[in-house]
Amino acid sequence: MLYPEVLSDTINSFRKFPGVGEKTAERYALATMEFSDEDIETIIKNISECKKRLHKCSVCGHLTDKEICSICDDSGREENLICVVEDYKSVFMFEKTGTFRGKYHVLNGLISPIDGIYPEDINMSPLMNRIDANDKNAEIILALKPSIEGETTTLYIKKIFENKNIKVSRLSYGIPMGVDIDYLDSITLDRALLDRKEIS
Amino acid sequence: MLYPEVLSDTINSFRKFPGVGEKTAERYALATMEFSDEDIETIIKNISECKKRLHKCSVCGHLTDKEICSICDDSGREENLICVVEDYKSVFMFEKTGTFRGKYHVLNGLISPIDGIYPEDINMSPLMNRIDANDKNAEIILALKPSIEGETTTLYIKKIFENKNIKVSRLSYGIPMGVDIDYLDSITLDRALLDRKEIS
Repeated sequence: MLYPEVLSDTINSFRKFPGVGEKTAERYALATMEFSDEDIETIIKNISECKKRLHKCSVCGHLTDKEICSICDDSGREENLICVVEDYKSVFMFEKTGTFRGKYHVLNGLISPIDGIYPEDINMSPLMNRIDANDKNAEIILALKPSIEGETTTLYIKKIFENKNIKVSRLSYGIPMGVDIDYLDSITLDRALLDRKEIS
Repeated sequence: MLYPEVLSDTINSFRKFPGVGEKTAERYALATMEFSDEDIETIIKNISECKKRLHKCSVCGHLTDKEICSICDDSGREENLICVVEDYKSVFMFEKTGTFRGKYHVLNGLISPIDGIYPEDINMSPLMNRIDANDKNAEIILALKPSIEGETTTLYIKKIFENKNIKVSRLSYGIPMGVDIDYLDSITLDRALLDRKEIS
């Protein structure tokens, strides 16, 4: 046997993390040998508490360790500008850009009839009560991935809020910044052509 | 604040691991949210036990969870063929090739007078008693890195065992397998030329 049992077990534990192969897992396991006892205490405390203490915000469905997440709790943000995303990872991505000043709604899934996932199976209905149709500036921005499930969910939400006379938009599709057009796939290029904007 | 506190703490914990940046640490921390409670239990148990249960083999200095490591304990391996390495990571590397049938001696350091590290500061003296000079096939293979410290340690060991009439060899230097000669550094190429072997 190549490794002592406890080392081999630790390597297997690290392999559970996304994108971690044999070599990286070995590196992490051996790294624990060099950590101070306090560091190890902190690491295992954090790993064990992360899942225990985090849950979904009762308003928007984002990840939080409080009853209501810090974004929903922020009165400085526009109440009636709601960005609808698939999961909490998207919220972190948007927050890193630092430009969006509205709120989020995390669906925690996408409609996919083929997989038996219908609107009632995702965090959809609370969204209806979150936006005030009397506000003329009210807007729902759909930021879902361009897949069949993403498009289905986008169209579903569009239909609901259309009836309520609320503006519904989606993110623009097109050429990612800094990418060479020569290497782009033809669907993206086609879309970018279709959605071209007049230069003002 | 971008992350809930416990998530931010967990991300910081993962950043302690070698080669883990902000983005990877975030990915690992969020992955713990998807793990089962049993998986999390196992992971934290392993991380906490790895350093506690592993220590140096009393014979060779390699990492083990027993008194004597499984390699020293293996009577099928040649006693008088000892490969001297800097650390336990090298042992794992050699064991992965699966061809070496001797034993190891882990120095857990290299001689470096400039840093105040002398032969008595590393796991050197037990090596003297491990090899039987009456065995004509006795051999010490030095597998230390080609740096000033590695060379110093190599020469030191060579000198000691020369007096005891024991064969001392070192790994060959030369062109790594699969590498294009055009991209090789000139010191390696020079060495490969100097150490050229007659084709038999």
